[in-house]
Amino acid sequence: MSAERQGHQRRTGGRSRTRAATAESSAVAQLPWQQIRNPFPPFRFITDDQVETIHQASLTVLKEHGINFLLPEARERLRIAGADVDADGPRVRFAPELVEELVGNAPSRFTIHARNPAHNVHMGDNVINVCLVASPPHVSALDMPRKAGDFESYTDLLRLGQSLNICHMIAGYPVEPIDLPPATRHLQAVQAMLTLTDKPVYAYCLGAERIRDAHAMIQIARGIPEQAFREQPSMTSVVNANSPRQYDVPMLLGMTEMAINNQPVVVTPFTLAGAMAPVTVAGALVQQNAEALAGIAYMQVVNPGAPAIYGGFTSNVDMKSGAPAFGTPEHAKATIIGGQLARRYNLPYRASNVNASNAPDAQSAYEAGMTIWSCMLGHCNMIKHALGWIEGGLCASFEKVILDAEMLQMMAEFLKPLDTHEPDLALDAIADVQPGGHYFGTQHTIERFESAFYAPILSDWRNFETWRDAGSEDATRRAHGIWKQLLAEYEAPPLDPAVAEALDSYVAHRLEDGGVTDHW
Amino acid sequence: MSAERQGHQRRTGGRSRTRAATAESSAVAQLPWQQIRNPFPPFRFITDDQVETIHQASLTVLKEHGINFLLPEARERLRIAGADVDADGPRVRFAPELVEELVGNAPSRFTIHARNPAHNVHMGDNVINVCLVASPPHVSALDMPRKAGDFESYTDLLRLGQSLNICHMIAGYPVEPIDLPPATRHLQAVQAMLTLTDKPVYAYCLGAERIRDAHAMIQIARGIPEQAFREQPSMTSVVNANSPRQYDVPMLLGMTEMAINNQPVVVTPFTLAGAMAPVTVAGALVQQNAEALAGIAYMQVVNPGAPAIYGGFTSNVDMKSGAPAFGTPEHAKATIIGGQLARRYNLPYRASNVNASNAPDAQSAYEAGMTIWSCMLGHCNMIKHALGWIEGGLCASFEKVILDAEMLQMMAEFLKPLDTHEPDLALDAIADVQPGGHYFGTQHTIERFESAFYAPILSDWRNFETWRDAGSEDATRRAHGIWKQLLAEYEAPPLDPAVAEALDSYVAHRLEDGGVTDHW
Repeated sequence: MSAERQGHQRRTGGRSRTRAATAESSAVAQLPWQQIRNPFPPFRFITDDQVETIHQASLTVLKEHGINFLLPEARERLRIAGADVDADGPRVRFAPELVEELVGNAPSRFTIHARNPAHNVHMGDNVINVCLVASPPHVSALDMPRKAGDFESYTDLLRLGQSLNICHMIAGYPVEPIDLPPATRHLQAVQAMLTLTDKPVYAYCLGAERIRDAHAMIQIARGIPEQAFREQPSMTSVVNANSPRQYDVPMLLGMTEMAINNQPVVVTPFTLAGAMAPVTVAGALVQQNAEALAGIAYMQVVNPGAPAIYGGFTSNVDMKSGAPAFGTPEHAKATIIGGQLARRYNLPYRASNVNASNAPDAQSAYEAGMTIWSCMLGHCNMIKHALGWIEGGLCASFEKVILDAEMLQMMAEFLKPLDTHEPDLALDAIADVQPGGHYFGTQHTIERFESAFYAPILSDWRNFETWRDAGSEDATRRAHGIWKQLLAEYEAPPLDPAVAEALDSYVAHRLEDGGVTDHW
Repeated sequence: MSAERQGHQRRTGGRSRTRAATAESSAVAQLPWQQIRNPFPPFRFITDDQVETIHQASLTVLKEHGINFLLPEARERLRIAGADVDADGPRVRFAPELVEELVGNAPSRFTIHARNPAHNVHMGDNVINVCLVASPPHVSALDMPRKAGDFESYTDLLRLGQSLNICHMIAGYPVEPIDLPPATRHLQAVQAMLTLTDKPVYAYCLGAERIRDAHAMIQIARGIPEQAFREQPSMTSVVNANSPRQYDVPMLLGMTEMAINNQPVVVTPFTLAGAMAPVTVAGALVQQNAEALAGIAYMQVVNPGAPAIYGGFTSNVDMKSGAPAFGTPEHAKATIIGGQLARRYNLPYRASNVNASNAPDAQSAYEAGMTIWSCMLGHCNMIKHALGWIEGGLCASFEKVILDAEMLQMMAEFLKPLDTHEPDLALDAIADVQPGGHYFGTQHTIERFESAFYAPILSDWRNFETWRDAGSEDATRRAHGIWKQLLAEYEAPPLDPAVAEALDSYVAHRLEDGGVTDHW
């Protein structure tokens, strides 16, 4: 006898939403902003001995084969620090002791300051920080066919990042605003981050000048002098090594400027197994680890103690086409093992919530689910691209922002420990309800029902008939309505008018100057 | 500089599938049939002390408040075994020592025999068995609006269960074939399981007669006498307690017949927190555990050593509507803790891959993903409803069968340990590829690329333009094409004509008899 079915049939009659819920629907219900902590020990996909094997192999790579540092002044710094630098070329080799000594200077944890201190984030330990999607060249929505990114979509995505409490950090341009000129784009982009949101912001390591502008603007927004800024990490930037084994000039200029100013760089090799890295997950991780350690070591040469985040981005390609794949079993393994490696060095860990689907559909959800669970199990401290990424990063999807917000809220709720004391143990409630009865109207239920369970922002639990009669909207279509509603209800976070004016003035002057003078 | 994006742009030109892949597309590529083993230690959502707290609380429930057994002969058996049976009513109370002694008789592991021995499954330890959806009253597909289940859909779903290698067990009617008369439905239903598939089969504990028919038919199909059948578990049946705290007459008749014949019963309380169980997850688990232990204890009274599977089905209701929800954070916690409890008693563990979505959409995927990961982490041995369930069990979806198959294949692949020895460590391959180069054509890659990574059955990794030009089919629509193709390519597993004839004959005689005489 299948009560798994019969129970459902019994209750479908009363499965419509209450008036109270409808009345509340003028605002999107969501969890409050929270620092998410993972109370569970990290998952060990490989043994500690295997971690050591990968560690030793990557030290061998650094010692025997080395990494290209294309910026001469970076090589000179590394030479002085004791690295083995080729006289006539860009190759730098590291003795194992030097790598371990340098990487050991990087801090295990730090605070990243937002202009609203309530939105500061802790980076390290068991804290999980969720980031808005970053860097897609395209954007799409159900009512907006895929197009090149523009400043309007860029600002709308920022507004969603501000409105969604599950979003902790802006960690890149949520879409590339290509209608802004390259030499000045960063000025308006960073200004928008600092005014439309009050969460930690970001600038790209594309030369030193853009980073300097961002630093100046953050100091204005936070109302702090340069010295305080240098004491308080207040942004992030990602550097993707040009895998295999190379750091180019603009990224080295940027990360140098970041390190000098004690700002965190997320050092993330782009090690797609079978393309820019060996075709085996183990081999790709050896290369990832070697490249990450080299970049982090370089930062410590520039400024011992400069905050760095160990970035893992190892996934695999589709060997039929060479296309990158994300959310695969191999990607999940690499994500968890990346965390094991980062902890080997006592470094905060960055991974990603990503997928390769061309639409915000079921594939995008199950591939993203693989990465979210891997991030959680691997004790990822910074989940990049967590809200809105589709198409392997080539497109930001407004609907996917909402799908991701739901999945990440569910994970945040899952991580709350279970209380097994009375009255949660409910022995009295069980005694009070006779066999064959139900708990709907009991005192124990009434006292708790408002907050007993996670309330979704997107999932639709109405019965089929109600759902069908309301238009048979699938999750993607409902997500469309939700982001529209969030944008309609968006309110900019408070900003001192004098600060806003100072930011305006800075940007105006730099626009007059023509922006950066480099050619990256 | 964002290589996370740039790398993608670089490769999009060559992102079309090769001719080889197209030529192979006459058959759906899938992983071979395999016994899935979880090499990782079980996840402990709660501490061992908390497990003990729930255990002790459920013993208190069984001792002080008891369980209704509505079948007089069951109460009499329990009374003789030492339980405290009310003189004038259905209540049975158990001393803690009696519960522990009886439950201790149930085996920790056993084989469930299929008519094809290659499809026998091991139940227990770290093996994960995947079951086809069971018991929905409705069925739907993209080209077939939701309708009441019928025998045609029933058999098509069985064919998919046979064709999909990731499916280990038929564990219920994949949809209720309501066009067959109730008194004889089980005859044709079980015959279809035994002929259209060669995997372990199922019958419902809806009185004893249906179970007896199934036992007779399985003996015919397997070609074994009754004595051998009693030595070899060869099917399963689920009993859902009428939560709270009641076992009704038909299910007790059925499980008695199962226990007598040494066939495994999956004892699964239907404890939806806030409806048939306390509104707290801890309280619902106390009740689940009490009910499960009582049912398993009863089986041991009937036949000490009878195989039982501890079933967990604790999820929560939507407190706005009373509708059941699945794949929620609470459900994920309960699923993992259910595994902790089952292991406390050294019993195989059953949980489910379920969701409450009204369509095979992104919600169905992310809710299912929550349950699949929880099943894996909780060391679930039998994932019920794993292929094809939507709508909280009210509908079987043909497209969802394929979505689930992909998600479960990905999990099976994730569970394969990582080799960190050479040549997988790839030190030579790394040495051979110069900085800025790539690994596409290297010997190390060529030797491995065919089998290096998981090849999906549903995920589409083509670039956006190719995907769009081919019709912009989302995952659900592609799933439609895949199940159609699987049905078109379906071949019935070999069956000795004499056996087929004997089954026909048995069913014909029983149809002539008019089927079961009971009124359940």
